[in-house]
Amino acid sequence: MDLDLLRGLAQPSTTKIVLCSLDGLGGLPRPETGKSELETARIPHLHALAARSACGLLRHVGPGITPGSGPGHLGLFGYDPLRHPVGRGVLEALGIDFPLTPGDVAARGNFCTVDGEGRITDRRAGRISTDLCVKLCERLRQIHGEGAELLIEPVKEHRFVLVLRGQGLSGHLSETDPQALGTPPLPVRALDAAAERTAVIVNQFIARARELLRDDAPANMILLRGFDTQPALPLFPEIYSFRAAAIAAYPMYRGLARLVGMEVLKTGTTFADEIETLRKQWTAHDFFFVHYKDTDKAGEDGDFDAKVAALERFDAELPGILALEPDVLAVSGDHSTPSILAAHGWQPVPALVASRYCGADQVSRFTERDCASGALGVLPAQELMPILMANALRFIKYGA
Amino acid sequence: MDLDLLRGLAQPSTTKIVLCSLDGLGGLPRPETGKSELETARIPHLHALAARSACGLLRHVGPGITPGSGPGHLGLFGYDPLRHPVGRGVLEALGIDFPLTPGDVAARGNFCTVDGEGRITDRRAGRISTDLCVKLCERLRQIHGEGAELLIEPVKEHRFVLVLRGQGLSGHLSETDPQALGTPPLPVRALDAAAERTAVIVNQFIARARELLRDDAPANMILLRGFDTQPALPLFPEIYSFRAAAIAAYPMYRGLARLVGMEVLKTGTTFADEIETLRKQWTAHDFFFVHYKDTDKAGEDGDFDAKVAALERFDAELPGILALEPDVLAVSGDHSTPSILAAHGWQPVPALVASRYCGADQVSRFTERDCASGALGVLPAQELMPILMANALRFIKYGA
Repeated sequence: MDLDLLRGLAQPSTTKIVLCSLDGLGGLPRPETGKSELETARIPHLHALAARSACGLLRHVGPGITPGSGPGHLGLFGYDPLRHPVGRGVLEALGIDFPLTPGDVAARGNFCTVDGEGRITDRRAGRISTDLCVKLCERLRQIHGEGAELLIEPVKEHRFVLVLRGQGLSGHLSETDPQALGTPPLPVRALDAAAERTAVIVNQFIARARELLRDDAPANMILLRGFDTQPALPLFPEIYSFRAAAIAAYPMYRGLARLVGMEVLKTGTTFADEIETLRKQWTAHDFFFVHYKDTDKAGEDGDFDAKVAALERFDAELPGILALEPDVLAVSGDHSTPSILAAHGWQPVPALVASRYCGADQVSRFTERDCASGALGVLPAQELMPILMANALRFIKYGA
Repeated sequence: MDLDLLRGLAQPSTTKIVLCSLDGLGGLPRPETGKSELETARIPHLHALAARSACGLLRHVGPGITPGSGPGHLGLFGYDPLRHPVGRGVLEALGIDFPLTPGDVAARGNFCTVDGEGRITDRRAGRISTDLCVKLCERLRQIHGEGAELLIEPVKEHRFVLVLRGQGLSGHLSETDPQALGTPPLPVRALDAAAERTAVIVNQFIARARELLRDDAPANMILLRGFDTQPALPLFPEIYSFRAAAIAAYPMYRGLARLVGMEVLKTGTTFADEIETLRKQWTAHDFFFVHYKDTDKAGEDGDFDAKVAALERFDAELPGILALEPDVLAVSGDHSTPSILAAHGWQPVPALVASRYCGADQVSRFTERDCASGALGVLPAQELMPILMANALRFIKYGA
């Protein structure tokens, strides 16, 4: 969909929309039973909701393509993930709640070990403690870039984030990690002319870091990967003319919501905390993105039973959302994470849209198999937002 | 899908993919019984396979558009048939296993009869014997083009293929067949400036052919139609990073596979021969395109019972493919050929994808009606290949 078209149709209203993203929602049948996680779980509230919803399957990037968390959520938010790539450096920064601003260039950093000749002997510096990482990052903050602010934040163990902030920077840079031992780190190269100046700043930073870390073996050098620029996305609340809030216990999903301009609400560490936040902030916003992480974690662990349990925990909290009587409630996810795959999958993700105007279909159970024959069909994820807007009576007619 | 995107996601693996194309697979209910060919046939192996597959319907070109064999197969191979047209001359050359190379210009030729004034009296030269066609083609091979090699191959009866090979040739040429009796053949005209030189070469060829055939009535002249250039397609094995083989008893399908860069395996004249070839070559390739012709032939003949029998013969051979335990097995076709239409049809074609990770749907019978509610939905044929790649775990994740 053309976002400018949607922008032209959006109008203010008093209706409320809740979009629940169950991370890694979709699954696959376990061979022993022939039933998927959703088909195995006791999820009476989800099934009852599906029975009065329009159901379907969402595909986030393209047929057969497994979405990362970035593209998966951008799709849910109504953006074409192929037109708005989000790179690894930006995602790493979002993952630690780093407040990126448009134009920032972010990279993933590793502390590593080099020998007397400068050749890499350990790409992860023996996985130093996070405490040490914090201290070393503090030391690197002494370095000042010429023509760009350098921001350094520890992540975990040997990992940190480097952000360059300033005018006219570019993330079109090669990586310094040769992905091999016994060779020295590579200098950064500009991948196009517009990135030349940024390459110089980064190489100066690396040279200074080498000096500052000289005596800190095993963490006596750094590697930088996944440079990219914070994408300038059309802003979600402006496209849809509403006040949009994100509730997510995990930083990366807060970051993705911030990237599109949602207001990120302070919440606790559990999903019950998220529901409580939703309840308290109910009057202050029109649209709520509510993120549930446990389904993905269990799926990535290949733990079928844990994913079933995670679905059941979500189901138990669902009445707390229903009690708020949103005008439109959507439940779906950012990608599949089938337990038998123990990884993100390409399989389209069940979706339901409940509203007074959603229409009826044959689906009365919220499973992959049932949703395949729902009224929404198999639809690109970015088509969900316009459907939610319509169900909230927040779109005017197109044409006379 | 953008093929460069897919190329970037493809990674090597040891998994095996088999794509069976049942030519003209889809059908329509016979009015007497209300059942289609697939619904009438006893095809227990296909039904059992459908029950453990993701099913759907493939649409090869667009809604209501009946695909020829070229576009139908290009769609199956993952190409958008509208972006990669294959013309009649090229298809005629592929149909006789002619080894076209990129840049070749091919045309369909007819021997015809002209009177003393050079006016056409029979556009097909009384359908001369194939033997005579072979002899006359040998004679035409005496002609040498200025700046292009001229290759002439008999097809059948009055039909032959002309191929021009050389630098800077163009197939943007008008036809010489006036499609009417009583007028002389038309000279070839260049349809754009880049084709001027090719037009001169072709007109010189025609003039020489007229002289050489002067005394051979009824085959005393030629007509040329359907000029076009062999399209330069992105190569299938390079896009998907695998070794791809084609097994087809009929030359046109070998030709189409060769056009996209598949290795064409030597096989016999029956489908049993094809299965035997598949078995013998199993370890040497990663992807196998296996073509089954009988369904289309029966459909084109308008012979409902023969098409039912052809489906049953395929079903009887299916265990031979299953015994090889491909990681991914897809069964579909290049277009429908409903017996009651006695021609190619626009109706979308049943498709199934069986793999460990294909997911479940409600479909337990491989018919047009059942596949309509499958998990794959109604999908453009070119989306099948990415789905097969994903199921073979040959695609990496898109984005972080």
